[in-house]
Formats: sequence, C-alpha cells, structure tokens
Amino acid sequence: MSLKSFLPILDWFPNYNKNWLKGDVSAGLTVGVMLIPQGMAYASIAGLPAVYGLYASIIPLIVYAVFGTSRQLAVGPVAMVSLLTATAIGSFEGITTEQYITYAILLALMVGAIQFLLGVFRLGFLVNFLSHPVVSGFTSAAALIIGLSQLKHLLGVNIPRSHHVHDIILNAIDKFSEINWIAVVIGILGILIIVVSKRIKKSLPGQLFAVIFGILAVTFFGLGEGAHSVSIVKDIPSSLPSFIIPSFDMGIVQLLIPMALTISLISFMESIAVAKAIQTKHRDYKVVANQELISLGLANVFGSFFQSYPTTGGFSRTAVNDQAGAKTGLASIISAVLIIITLLFLTPYFYNLPKAILASVIMVAVFGLIDYKEAIHLLKSNRTDFSTLIVTFLATLILGIEMGIGVGVVLSLAMVLFKTTNPHTAELAKVPDSHFYRNVKRFENLEVKDDVLIYRFDAQLFFANINYFKDELYDYEKGKGDKLRLLILDGESINNIDSTSIHALEEIVLDFNSRDIDVYFTGIKGPVRDKMLSSGFIKKAKQENFFMSIQKAVDFYESHEKSYIKDKNYQKYTHQTNK
Amino acid sequence: MSLKSFLPILDWFPNYNKNWLKGDVSAGLTVGVMLIPQGMAYASIAGLPAVYGLYASIIPLIVYAVFGTSRQLAVGPVAMVSLLTATAIGSFEGITTEQYITYAILLALMVGAIQFLLGVFRLGFLVNFLSHPVVSGFTSAAALIIGLSQLKHLLGVNIPRSHHVHDIILNAIDKFSEINWIAVVIGILGILIIVVSKRIKKSLPGQLFAVIFGILAVTFFGLGEGAHSVSIVKDIPSSLPSFIIPSFDMGIVQLLIPMALTISLISFMESIAVAKAIQTKHRDYKVVANQELISLGLANVFGSFFQSYPTTGGFSRTAVNDQAGAKTGLASIISAVLIIITLLFLTPYFYNLPKAILASVIMVAVFGLIDYKEAIHLLKSNRTDFSTLIVTFLATLILGIEMGIGVGVVLSLAMVLFKTTNPHTAELAKVPDSHFYRNVKRFENLEVKDDVLIYRFDAQLFFANINYFKDELYDYEKGKGDKLRLLILDGESINNIDSTSIHALEEIVLDFNSRDIDVYFTGIKGPVRDKMLSSGFIKKAKQENFFMSIQKAVDFYESHEKSYIKDKNYQKYTHQTNK
Repeated sequence: MSLKSFLPILDWFPNYNKNWLKGDVSAGLTVGVMLIPQGMAYASIAGLPAVYGLYASIIPLIVYAVFGTSRQLAVGPVAMVSLLTATAIGSFEGITTEQYITYAILLALMVGAIQFLLGVFRLGFLVNFLSHPVVSGFTSAAALIIGLSQLKHLLGVNIPRSHHVHDIILNAIDKFSEINWIAVVIGILGILIIVVSKRIKKSLPGQLFAVIFGILAVTFFGLGEGAHSVSIVKDIPSSLPSFIIPSFDMGIVQLLIPMALTISLISFMESIAVAKAIQTKHRDYKVVANQELISLGLANVFGSFFQSYPTTGGFSRTAVNDQAGAKTGLASIISAVLIIITLLFLTPYFYNLPKAILASVIMVAVFGLIDYKEAIHLLKSNRTDFSTLIVTFLATLILGIEMGIGVGVVLSLAMVLFKTTNPHTAELAKVPDSHFYRNVKRFENLEVKDDVLIYRFDAQLFFANINYFKDELYDYEKGKGDKLRLLILDGESINNIDSTSIHALEEIVLDFNSRDIDVYFTGIKGPVRDKMLSSGFIKKAKQENFFMSIQKAVDFYESHEKSYIKDKNYQKYTHQTNK
Repeated sequence: MSLKSFLPILDWFPNYNKNWLKGDVSAGLTVGVMLIPQGMAYASIAGLPAVYGLYASIIPLIVYAVFGTSRQLAVGPVAMVSLLTATAIGSFEGITTEQYITYAILLALMVGAIQFLLGVFRLGFLVNFLSHPVVSGFTSAAALIIGLSQLKHLLGVNIPRSHHVHDIILNAIDKFSEINWIAVVIGILGILIIVVSKRIKKSLPGQLFAVIFGILAVTFFGLGEGAHSVSIVKDIPSSLPSFIIPSFDMGIVQLLIPMALTISLISFMESIAVAKAIQTKHRDYKVVANQELISLGLANVFGSFFQSYPTTGGFSRTAVNDQAGAKTGLASIISAVLIIITLLFLTPYFYNLPKAILASVIMVAVFGLIDYKEAIHLLKSNRTDFSTLIVTFLATLILGIEMGIGVGVVLSLAMVLFKTTNPHTAELAKVPDSHFYRNVKRFENLEVKDDVLIYRFDAQLFFANINYFKDELYDYEKGKGDKLRLLILDGESINNIDSTSIHALEEIVLDFNSRDIDVYFTGIKGPVRDKMLSSGFIKKAKQENFFMSIQKAVDFYESHEKSYIKDKNYQKYTHQTNK
C-alpha cells in the first residue's frame, strides 16, 4: 500500500488548485451552518446534551479530510447513527447522565476500532450483503422511529423513550390533554420555514432560519419561563471538547460489542453509499471501500479522544457540500473551524433555542428518507424484492432497529439461495433459419424435434439444486416420450459445478445411455470444464460428446443419425456378453 | 393426492406377480437373519438392552411396507441413528435404565411426528442442503465414533461413554492393563469370520456365523463365568413388544426437540439416499421424497407405540435386500415375521452371546462407511469441496456429532454464497472464422478489438455481487484504454437479476454513455428480460441496444461505425443546450 493510498490528502493538498478554493470555502461555510442546528438536534436523538453534537462535528471532520478517499463526503453526527447510539446506551438501566455520556464516547471508540480493523483486513465487501430493498426498508423504518421519537419535543409532553412505534404513538395519545400548544405552533412553523426555504432555493440555510426564528420567538415572548413555557436548550458550555482517553470498563465493552458491530456496518454502509453516489459525478478520484473503513474508523477513534460520539458520512450534508461546490477535504476542515468558532463565541445565543425547533429540523431531515417511491416501484416490478423491503420495514418497526436489519439480511440471502435451488429451466428448440435455440414455452414456431431434448438449466449446479435439476430433466424426458434418442445439456447458463452434482451427472449419463439415449454437452464454460476434467467426468462422458454449440451438436447427430440407426440393428451382436 | 400415492402398497399388492415371490421370500429371510445380530448390536450403540434392537425390527418394517415408495428399502435400527439416540439420551445425567428406555421411545415418537409433518408440508427438499462432501465427512466421522465406542466391548474393559474420539482413545490407553484378552480374541475372530464370509460370497450370513461362533465358544469353554469371564448378553425376554403409548413429559420433550430434529433430517437423508440409489436399478416405481418422509415418520410413530426406538432405512441391509432379489415390501414383512419368531422362541439361545461379537458386527459395518476414497478424489479434483469434507469430518469428531453436521451445512452454503459474490468473469473475443466469442485469457489468437469490450459475468446479478461486477467491469475498461467506443454486456451467464443490480446497471449505462461509449446487451435470458422490462430498464437502456448474439451486436456496430464517427464530429452541434 502506498503512502498516498493511506493518506489521500497527499493526493490533493500538494497539488491544490486555486480555482477550487472558492467552492471549498462556500461549501465549508454552508455545511458548517447546517451542522450547528443538525449537530444539536442529532445529539438529542442520541439522548445526549446538545453540545455533544457540536463536539462530534470537529475532530471527525478533520481526520476524515486527511484519510478519506471521498472529497465531498461530509462526516459528522447523523440521524441513524444517533438513533443506534440511543438504542445501545438506552438499554442500560439506572445510569447517570455522566455515565450515559461516557458510554456513548466509549461506543465511538469501539465503532472506530472495529471499522479500522475491518478496513485493515479488507472486509469492506461485507457491506455488499445489504441489498437495496433491505437498506430502503430499514432506512424508512428508522426514519419513522426517529421522527416519532421527536414527537415529545414537538408536542411539549414527556413521552417515555421507546424504539417501538406503537408504544410511542399510544403514549402520545395518552398524553393528549397535556400537549403544549405553543411548542406545537413553534415546531410547525419551524418545519414550514425549512421546507419553504428549500423550495425557494436548495442552498438556503432553512434550518438556520428556523433556529433564528425559534430563538427570537422565545426571547421576545418570554416563552422560556412561566406556566406555558416551552422546553429550551438552555446553557451550552462555551469551550472546546477536552482531550480525554475514554475510560474502559470491560464489562460495559462486552455489553456494547453487538451494537458497536451493528453501528460500524450500518454507518459504513450509509457513508459508502453516498460517497460512491457523489463520486460518479467526479472522475478525478476514486472511493476505495477499505480505505473508507479505515478513515471513518480513525475519525471515530480520534473523535472519541475529544468527546465525540459515533459519527459517519451523512446523506443530506454531503449532497449540500457537493452542490455548494466542495472540491476537496478542505471544505470539511472549514466546516469544522466554523463549529470551533461557534463553540467558543456563539453558544450563549442558543440558550433560548426551543427543543421544538430541533425536532422540526430532525423531522424534515428524516421524513425525506422515507422511501415510499422505491416500495411502489418494486411492487410493480419485482415482488420478491418488494416483500424483502416490506418485511425489513416491519421487522425494524416491530422487533426494533438492531433486529430489523438482521432479519432483512438473512431474508434476502435466503431468498437468493432459495431461488438458486429452484432456478428457471427450459427446453430449447431452433429458431427457424438461424443457429439460435430458444425456450419452447416463450416462442412459437420453433423447430422442435421428437428425438432430441435440449435442456437448459439456469443456475450453477450445486448440491442444493442437483435434485431439482434431475427432477426437471426427467419431467422433460417424460414429455418427449419414447422417440427420444439424444439429450443435449446446454451448459451456457451453468456457471459453476461442485462435486455433488458431478457425481449426479455421471449417474444421469449412465442412466440415459442405458436406455440408448446419447448425452451431448454444449457450450460448457471454462471453469466448469476444468472441474469436469479434474474429476474425470469428461473421460466418463466421453470427450467427443462435448460440442461448441447446440447447432454443432445437432449437426453432428443428424449426420450420424442414419448410420446410427443401422448400427442399432446389430446392437444385440455388438453388446452381447455371457454375464 | 390419490390414495395410491399415500398408500403405495395398493400399487403392488393387488397386482402381485407370482414370479416376485421367490425373490421376496429369499430376501426377506436373508435380511431377517442379518437383522438379529445387527439389531442387538445397534441397540447397544444406542445404550439400550439388546432386545430393543429386535423390538425396533418389527412394526417399523411393516408400516414402511404399507406407506413407503421404495420396494427394496430395509427399514429398522441403523448405526448412525443409534449413535444419535445415545447422544440425545446420554446427555441426561443420573437417570435410571427405565427412564433411558422411556426417553428413547419418546424420541422415536417425536422423530416420527416431525418427519410426518415435514412430509405433509412437503419440506423434503430441506435434505438437498446436505452436500455430498458434508455427508461424506460427517458419515466417516460418525463411523469412527461408533467404531471406537465399541472398543470397550472388544477390549472387555469399562470405558466411560463419550462422543469425543480423543477421550475414548485416551481412556482406552489408560485401561491397557485391564484388557480382557479373551474378549479381544473372540472379537477379532468375529471380525475375521464376517470379513472372510463376505469375501467368499456376498450373500453369506457372516454376521450370523460370528454370532454362532461366539455363543458356541462361550458355552463350550465356560467363558461366561469365572475370573476371566467375558461380558455376555444374558437374558433376553421371550416376548413380543407391548402396546404402550409413550409417556409425555413436556420438559423432556422440550429438551429432546433439537436432537429429534437432527435425527429426523439425518435419518431421512440416509434413507432417501439409499432408496434413490437402489431405485435407479428398478424402473417400475418412483421414490417420492415427501411420501418417504411420511412413511418413515409413520414407521417411527407406530414403532414407538410398540417400544421401538428411532429407526430408518439403512445402507447395508437395503443393498443385501436388493441383491437377494426383493421385489416388493413383502420382503420386509417376511423379515419382520422372522424377528417375531426369534423373539418368541429363540432368545434363550442368545444368553451366551459375547458382547465382543456384537462389537465386531458393528465395527465391520461402520468401518465400511469411512469414505477415504471420496476424500482423495476431492483432494485431486476440487479443493473447495475437499476442505468442506475435512472441516465437517473434524468438526464432527471434535465438536460432536450434532454440531458437526451443522458446521458442514453452514460452511457449504457460505462457500456457495461466497463464490457467487466473487464469480468468474471474462473479456471475450472472436474465435477466427466463426461466430463464437471466447475468453481472451483462455485462448490465443482470438480477434481482440481495441474499440470494443465484450464482458461476460458468470453469475446471477444480485445485491451481493453487483459491486464486484462493477469493479471488474471498470478494470477491464481501464485495460482497454481510450479507444473504447462500445461495451457489450453478454447476458448468457446471467440467470437472474434483482432490483439492486438493475439500479446499478442504470448508473453504469449512464456513466458509459456520458463518456461516449455505447452499451449493448446480448443474449439476455427470458426471466432477466422480464425483470428488465417491468423495472423500466429496457426503456432507459433503449430497446435497440439489445441483440440476439454478440456477433449480431458487433455486426451492427461495425456497419454503423463510420457514420457514427462522422456523426461525432457534429456532436457539439447536436448536443448543445443553453443550460
């Protein structure tokens, strides 16, 4: 591995092009302005004081700028990972706020270490096992859970924390009489401000406008105190995060491992998906999955030394970063500097920020993630994938966020395996006036012969489908009747073969030969040929029965057919033995 | 379902052919004579008194004759299932012999019920997930464990029961000084008698000869008593099994469920494998997997009502049954009758039967199951399958019999999935003077073009390999350089496609087109075409870019190449917009 591939910053910093600067500065500032309300809001999803969202928006950004392969990815606190953090730490009962914070930071260290190791051992491919429907179903459900978790701030009532949608809704209905209508109005206005700003121009800092509106409303109308007071952010410490090595408690570490693994993979998946999507627009660099794991891992590890909870590359800020013209990691560094300035000088101004505004920031962000379009598209085009999406969505809502994704992955792999054990098969026949052979069930007017069965099996042959292969073959044979003299096994769809199926093929050849039916093989692929040779199958099935194409096999058979039939009349003489 | 398919006996009994009788009687008697020593021996593997092996050789045989689809399968106690029974019940500590027997019979009821339900719900395909290497490795290891479990009888010492090979061997070495050399001599002579009889003629009842030899030796030399006495079978009750509904203890049932499931599947697998192998020689009936589950299930359920422990169709007796000329289930009924006669009148003669002889019966039977030839064959021909075999073998020996098979199944499925995520790919080029395109890495002198990349991906396209598909494609593209004008995606090996990969293909087409490279599709299969159409992909990739074969695509491209290049000179005019 070269130094540049471990330190991608060396790729762009020494060759920094002056023309990039304008874009980097403007993008860095835009994202930084977004980060202030988002960071505070996402920290509240994670169950942490607002300031920890700002802490998490400094070191990880700078570290990623040094080690990351994407030049537009905006790292920092994101909604999904914040929710997972709350799920992980929320499972500890009866802990103090200090312990909660300590564990969340420890979790960042663990997530970082796991990601770093996954990257070093080149296990980035693991994320490939998350299919599009699983990600879509899971994201939609998580967005719904996150959105609903903000109901309490929007309604101004105290709803117990829960990751089960029905609990949240039932509890909210239960507290209907206690709703703080001032909070509701502020929240709805916040949502409107954000949505309308986005409609007017995508790069408008709508979230900042909502924050300013909220602070002004509370300050002017004195809503922070009194009988109908709304919940506000209050004191945010005016200091940078301190350098503290996270404290280790092996018992806690053990309890956190399953969730740390889940967060490592899910946050990597979110990040790599957006990084790759943005990269296709920029051909001056390449996103490398394993290096991304290393860089996100280091971002989390170093972040945890400076009081950061788990972070990753997020969808919305990355998109804004790219639109605003970011060309290199410098944009992220500029965002981080803006957060530092905020922490040092601006925090007192956020005292009166109503939590309902943070809720509106979150709600707008996450409801955009609810991907009903994909569900409708799949319903129309692919029922299998649609059911995977729906099952994952429901499992995430009902069984909880960490089980949901597991159910989705296992289900989608099981579906693939199941389909491979019951693949599509076809009897082929000749397209008139051509050398092409196609499925007799799909096309009319094909030239079907009574004495030749051409069988195509659309899957690799392996232990779990070889019986299906046999059953289908004997069914086709039965369909042909007694005139059958030649079986052609078309190998063009058979991409691999294992020893179990080679054993079975041997038996099939013997069985057909015993009934005076020849077996020819056509279009066998290289890797399959290799295994057929090394297992001795080609010798047993006879080299001369292997043909380049179906047409060649049929031509050979037809040219020998007459002499073959003549031969058969003498067969009792040529085949006779005394045993 | 027709009555005949639920009661296959109706297929042969009403049409019974007199010519079959001789074969059925001779086979029935031969197998019955084998069953007497085998039944007693296998009961001892299961940890049960010898007579329970005879009990298990009556009702299950008759029930299977009525419901089973195979006409040669010899049902009854077998070594593997006996070992699994011992593993299941042996895990209960501090139980009496009566409880041990009760639980073994309850286990038969549970196994039967599970098999029956699996059959009714048509889940027989589950057994397809056991690959040849897994079965081979597992069987060899189980045979070794069973054989070694008989060491104590062969050596005449008391070795504690264990299913771990190293324990058994260490304990045996420990007790070297206590070895009863008379037992050793009897056992070795027993083995010799069985092996030599088999060498002389396969149908000779060598096991019965060994039993007679053992009884005579003990009786004449008075070896059953005194200081150097050998262990003998002693009293066997002279009565038929009683009708007793197995007693239910839900706590015990719950504890037995995992092993009952394991036994259900493994015993079904052993039985269906031998039934199918024998059936290929007889074309007058068909073995139906789900009906086999139903019949084996009923055999176990009804067997358990008459004090039978779990049974199934066994390898060796079925082979003997077939060789001795069995034509229908009548042979099994005759075997059962012979066992009934034995139980009623002959049991006193077995008093002096030395257990060392039973050990020799078992050892000869199971060491024949150790399948070293398959291991050597795979070592030479298929390293993946070889390692699956070895891992399953070692896992069974080290982790135990019930874990071993699980490790094997999971490993073999993981291997299949892993290979599907990293399939073979190829760049194709034309075989001179033909319309065939083959892998440029396998063949020399192919006609490679600088401006055309023909890419073949040898697997179904799905979420877990679409990134690999992309990576390989872009690597090939890089190999072609700047002259590339046309990408041909050959679909003949792509047997299926999911929504995740269709999304990715859309991006790939857009990306290539944005660099002025056309993308053609050739040989797309019907089921893939269906999904491409319903998802709207064909519209996006343009219908006219889909071709019947690579040659057709290349022909089309070449005929348009010149006008295309001319066109490109005007592209800035045709592509101009003001946005």
